[in-house]
Amino acid sequence: MEELIGSVLQVDHAAFERARERHAGLAKPPGSLGRLEDLGARLAAISGRCPPPVPSSPAVVVAAADHGVHAQGVSDWPQEVTAAMVATAASGGAAVNAIARTVGARVVVVDVGTLRLGPVPDGVRDERVRSATRDLAVEPAMTLEECRTAIRAGARVAAELIDGGTDLLVTGEVGIGNTTASAALFAAFTGADPSDVTGKGANLDHGRTPLKVEVVRTALARHATDAAAGAQGPLATLASLGGLEHAALVGVMLAGAAARIPVVIDGVVTGAAALAAVALCPDLAGYLVAGHTSAEPGGRTLPDRVGEPALLDLRLRLGEGTGALLAVPLVQAAARVLTEMATLADVTKDAG
Amino acid sequence: MEELIGSVLQVDHAAFERARERHAGLAKPPGSLGRLEDLGARLAAISGRCPPPVPSSPAVVVAAADHGVHAQGVSDWPQEVTAAMVATAASGGAAVNAIARTVGARVVVVDVGTLRLGPVPDGVRDERVRSATRDLAVEPAMTLEECRTAIRAGARVAAELIDGGTDLLVTGEVGIGNTTASAALFAAFTGADPSDVTGKGANLDHGRTPLKVEVVRTALARHATDAAAGAQGPLATLASLGGLEHAALVGVMLAGAAARIPVVIDGVVTGAAALAAVALCPDLAGYLVAGHTSAEPGGRTLPDRVGEPALLDLRLRLGEGTGALLAVPLVQAAARVLTEMATLADVTKDAG
Repeated sequence: MEELIGSVLQVDHAAFERARERHAGLAKPPGSLGRLEDLGARLAAISGRCPPPVPSSPAVVVAAADHGVHAQGVSDWPQEVTAAMVATAASGGAAVNAIARTVGARVVVVDVGTLRLGPVPDGVRDERVRSATRDLAVEPAMTLEECRTAIRAGARVAAELIDGGTDLLVTGEVGIGNTTASAALFAAFTGADPSDVTGKGANLDHGRTPLKVEVVRTALARHATDAAAGAQGPLATLASLGGLEHAALVGVMLAGAAARIPVVIDGVVTGAAALAAVALCPDLAGYLVAGHTSAEPGGRTLPDRVGEPALLDLRLRLGEGTGALLAVPLVQAAARVLTEMATLADVTKDAG
Repeated sequence: MEELIGSVLQVDHAAFERARERHAGLAKPPGSLGRLEDLGARLAAISGRCPPPVPSSPAVVVAAADHGVHAQGVSDWPQEVTAAMVATAASGGAAVNAIARTVGARVVVVDVGTLRLGPVPDGVRDERVRSATRDLAVEPAMTLEECRTAIRAGARVAAELIDGGTDLLVTGEVGIGNTTASAALFAAFTGADPSDVTGKGANLDHGRTPLKVEVVRTALARHATDAAAGAQGPLATLASLGGLEHAALVGVMLAGAAARIPVVIDGVVTGAAALAAVALCPDLAGYLVAGHTSAEPGGRTLPDRVGEPALLDLRLRLGEGTGALLAVPLVQAAARVLTEMATLADVTKDAG
C-alpha cells in the first residue's frame, strides 16, 4: 500500500496552465464554457497532457459490503438487502446498470464483505475480506490488516481495468448501514460534530436520525480512546470507523491516481472514502472529480477537501455510483472541447 | 402555423401518474433518483407511454441570424462574427460540435437570416428569410409574415429530422446581438423591468450594460405604442422584439411538441424563444426540458414559465445549444431507468 501511495504523483500544474491558455485561444468568448473550462484544465493536469485525452472507456467499480453497526438500528432496511442489491446489479437490473448503459460505462460489482455464507453470485467479483465489518460503535470495524487487504483489493480491480483500457474510473457502492460509517469518517476527518454530518441515508425515518447521530458520537469517542492508546493515523481511522467498501474505494482511487486517470466520486459514501484516501495521500486530491452533490449533510464539507464543487445536483440519494456516472459525459465533453475546437486564429484566417 | 399550434396536444397526465407509480415499485428507495424521477414522469407524459421510449437519436438545431439592433452598440463583437461562427459550426470546429459528438447528437446549422450577400457555406441549411432583422429599438424587427416564415422554416427543419428518426430535439442558436432581443422578449412576455432581465451577453463590458438596458426599454416603449395601435398578441410581440432565430426555434419547439418528443432548451436565447412559443401555444410548455441555467438575469424567470428548473448549472454562457446538449444523457438516463430497472417484486422473488 505504501508503494501505491508513493506512486501517486502531484498533478501537472504546467499542463493545467497550458490548458487555460489553450481555452483562451479557442473560438468562443473567453470563459464562456464555464465549469467545463476548469474541468478541462484539471484533466490536463491529471494526464500531464494538453489537450488531455478524451476518456472513451469509463468503468464504475461498485464496492459492496455489510456493516456491524447495523445492530444499532441505524437503518430501516434489513442487511439482506445488500446482497439483493448486489445480485440485482450483477444481473443488470439496478439503477447503476441503466445509467451505465446510457453513458457507455462498464459495471464491475465487487463484494469486499457482504454478509453471506455461500458463494457470491455470477457476475460479482469475489474480493471478500470478511463477512461484514464489526460494530464500529463498540470496537474497530476492521483490523489494520483487513483494511489494508480491502484497499489492495480495490486497487487490484482498478489496475486490471486500467490494463484493459479503462481510462476513467467511477466509484460506486452498495451497503446497508454505510451512511453511518460515512458520517463517522466525515466527522473524524473533518472535525465536524456528528450532528452536522449525519443524515437520513437512503430512507431512515427522520425521527430516528438522532439515534444515528448518537451512534456516530459513541463511535468517535471509542475511536478517540483507541487513538490515545496508539491506534493513530488515517489508516487506523479508516479501519476503526469505515466499511470494507470505503477501504476498497480508497484502493480504486489510489490506483486511478497512480495511473494518472480521473476518478469520479459519487455521494457521501464515496466522498467519505475520498476523505480517507486524501488523508493517506494528499496528492490524490487532484485526481478526484466530484460528480454529484451528496444529499447527506456531510457532503457539504467535501468541496473544501477534494477540489471543485460537484458537477451535478439532481437530488439523487441512491448511491451505487449513479450520480457519478451521470457526470461522465461532462468529463468527456470537457476533454473534447479542448481537443477538437477550432481556435480563434483558425476562424480569423478562414474569415479573412 | 395555426394548424401546427392546433396539433400540439396537452401532455398525458395519466402517463405521468403511471410513471410515478412505476418509480415507486422499482428496486430502490422511493424518490432516491431525485430529479431523474420527475424527468422520467415528464417523458412519459410527453410520449403518452409508460415507460417512455429512450431517446437514441438526438439532434440539435442551431438557428443563426443577425440583428438590426446591433447598430445601437449592444455588443462588442462585429456582426461578421455570426457568419464566422456559422461557418465554424458547419465545419465541425465549434463547441456545439465537440459536445454533440460527446452525446451522439446530430448538428443541423440553419441560417434563417445572417447578414450576408453571398450563398451560405457548405453544410449550412439555407432558410434565409431576410438578411438580419430591422433595429427593434426603432421599428418592428420583423413583419408578421417574416416572423411566420421563420417559424415555418424551423418547424420544417424539425419535422424533417423527426421523419428521419430524431427522437429528441435540442435547441441552439448563434447571432451577435441576440441577448438584447432575448432581454426584450423576456421583459415583454414576463412583465419584468428591462433592468432585471438584461445582462452582459457573451462579452459586453459591464460599463455598457446600462446602454443595453436603455435600448431594451426604448424597444418596449416603441412596441407598446405599436400594440396600442393594433399590433397585439404573442406573434406581434415576437415579430416586434425577437430575432429570426427566435422565430425559427419557436417552429422547432412546435414541431417537436406536435410529434410528442421532448425539446431541450439551452440558455437565455432559446429560453426567450420558449416564452414566445408558450405564449402562442400554452400546451407546449409540457414538452420543454430546461437543460442548462442561463447566466443572463432573464433566465431566472424561466422556470415559472416552462416547468422545472434547469437540470444543469455549469456557468456556460456560450449558447449554440451547448448547455442543452450536455443535458441529453440525463434525459436518456431518466427514460432508461424507467424502462430497464428491476422492480422490488423481482428482487424479492429472486431473494426468496
